[in-house]
Amino acid sequence: MTSLSVHTQSIDFAAVRARVDKTLDDFLDAKHDDATARSMPVDVTEALGEFFASGGKRLRPLLCVLGWHAAGGHGDDEEVVRTAAAVEMFHAFCLIHDDIMDSSSTRRGRPTVHCAMAHRYDHDHIGTSAAILIGDMALAWSDELLNSPHRAPHRQAALHRVIDAMRQEVIYGQYLDLMAPFTPLTDHRAALQVIRFKTAKYTIERPLHAGAVLAGADPELLAALSRYALPLGEAFQLRDDILGVYGQPQETGKPVLDDLREGKHTVLIALAAQQATPAQHHLLHNLLGDPALDEDGAAQIRRVLQTTGARDQVEHMITTRYAQALTALQDAPCPPAATAALQRIATQAVQRTS
Amino acid sequence: MTSLSVHTQSIDFAAVRARVDKTLDDFLDAKHDDATARSMPVDVTEALGEFFASGGKRLRPLLCVLGWHAAGGHGDDEEVVRTAAAVEMFHAFCLIHDDIMDSSSTRRGRPTVHCAMAHRYDHDHIGTSAAILIGDMALAWSDELLNSPHRAPHRQAALHRVIDAMRQEVIYGQYLDLMAPFTPLTDHRAALQVIRFKTAKYTIERPLHAGAVLAGADPELLAALSRYALPLGEAFQLRDDILGVYGQPQETGKPVLDDLREGKHTVLIALAAQQATPAQHHLLHNLLGDPALDEDGAAQIRRVLQTTGARDQVEHMITTRYAQALTALQDAPCPPAATAALQRIATQAVQRTS
Repeated sequence: MTSLSVHTQSIDFAAVRARVDKTLDDFLDAKHDDATARSMPVDVTEALGEFFASGGKRLRPLLCVLGWHAAGGHGDDEEVVRTAAAVEMFHAFCLIHDDIMDSSSTRRGRPTVHCAMAHRYDHDHIGTSAAILIGDMALAWSDELLNSPHRAPHRQAALHRVIDAMRQEVIYGQYLDLMAPFTPLTDHRAALQVIRFKTAKYTIERPLHAGAVLAGADPELLAALSRYALPLGEAFQLRDDILGVYGQPQETGKPVLDDLREGKHTVLIALAAQQATPAQHHLLHNLLGDPALDEDGAAQIRRVLQTTGARDQVEHMITTRYAQALTALQDAPCPPAATAALQRIATQAVQRTS
Repeated sequence: MTSLSVHTQSIDFAAVRARVDKTLDDFLDAKHDDATARSMPVDVTEALGEFFASGGKRLRPLLCVLGWHAAGGHGDDEEVVRTAAAVEMFHAFCLIHDDIMDSSSTRRGRPTVHCAMAHRYDHDHIGTSAAILIGDMALAWSDELLNSPHRAPHRQAALHRVIDAMRQEVIYGQYLDLMAPFTPLTDHRAALQVIRFKTAKYTIERPLHAGAVLAGADPELLAALSRYALPLGEAFQLRDDILGVYGQPQETGKPVLDDLREGKHTVLIALAAQQATPAQHHLLHNLLGDPALDEDGAAQIRRVLQTTGARDQVEHMITTRYAQALTALQDAPCPPAATAALQRIATQAVQRTS
């Protein structure tokens, strides 16, 4: 074996995930005990504990730890693992609030938080309100996980600049997404802008940066990581959009018709709408966003995506961006083990089926 | 004039408010310019700007600055004013999300954020979703306002411990409030627990502590401030509950029947329910929480609050707590100007009509 593969093996994705999950579990256990001791409601810690236990890719915390390795971090990684857990706690906030906005009933194959709480209290508005508060608490607690009195002040300041940017970008991205129904269906630039803020920066770039600054990354390295992260993040979301129409519910954990029933303005749909015949245009306008859309209607939409060439175009966009990310990675001055790990992540992100 | 009154004059409430508001305005202006430059939606900065412009007491930021003075802070107060602005930004988050949960249509005499956005986009769910996101951004930005690379690390750590506690307490307090309909109407202890977390700690104690730790307050001083803050905070909320039933809408800025129509479980109502005759009990159960409650119904409830003695009891509770707060203040080792200012705040908090 070459030293490269030895180094590669040293970044064990499953081990990172296990340590991040342990940090989250320990944090929530302590919060749970504290709530019990002070007669506070345990709904919040229980709901968050169940949310993490239900699965998820843990992509963002993994990227956070890889960013640290990419910037030459080594030795005691306790601090970066805790920051990675903070990033995942923030993600729980995002998803819990997103599910309210999207009126989603399931996530990871289970009822969403607002639906579970509505069921528990037999009251829709209380369910939504409880989920707003549980999401709020996840946001507050993600910040609590970020603080470390032992960290050098300039590192803490650099980390906070990254996290401040990340939070703002994803909330703006979600706001743009919310307002997408007011933009023309054909506007693929608007759809790409949502992708950039809601996914590329939030899911890939900022978690990498968060880990990297903890290992003292300079602006050049951060820029090199961005050149990898942004095309990869776009490719990741474009794959998500494809899976939202063609994925297998038993693999993705969400009903395959959700995106179509919601009428989500994706790049895929925008490209199809641009190239649709008047009859196809009429069909898209009639079927997209219909909450009662059935498999037959979905099949008609898929035919339009196919015959307009939109699906192929998006696959091409994914391939191009994947290649850009890999090229950028070759040029980035990272330790071989980190580079190899980021290559694996890139491949998984674009070739996944869930 | 004695030196005490000279010192007292040196803490000018209106000037503190003006500087806090200027900090908030400047922060939002910079965010607005940044959003425009990056083609991000300006709804968020505009909505928050209008929210602050619509009024509010600025009690929490004022207490933050007074906490700093109470701990001997003097000279350059730029840092504490910025922290006070962060506390007010956090409060905007709380109110925007609370108004969604309470389904309130007006605040400070204007449409609430979710109602204004629902009106703008002619869509209730989009209005609520936009308000969730605008609240989320206020929470994220409040944290951004807290960070200061120039602050000594141990001060920053102490500040974060206070803010972490504050955020958690008020979210738990709101959660308890949300679940109040599932507790018996007569349970005044449950109502008092909501008051402690949602108001006493959040509105008075933690803002004071936040300012005090910036001036290096030790645990003894923080405990002394708590002995002033907690009874005062309870008195403040008990006054709020009275105003919610007896206040003048043109002064309070909210419809006087809201609390009764919502069926809010206040200490006032709990005490009345405990001492009600079966007929009065029946009346309370029938009228409280009726969204169509009219002035005649409200007058019937007020008669029950009067004849059961509940109103008098609550006034007595306010008086007792006000006295406790003032006694604690006399025993606290604070500079005379800070003590005098905290006395004024206490009097205003319990004797106000809005």
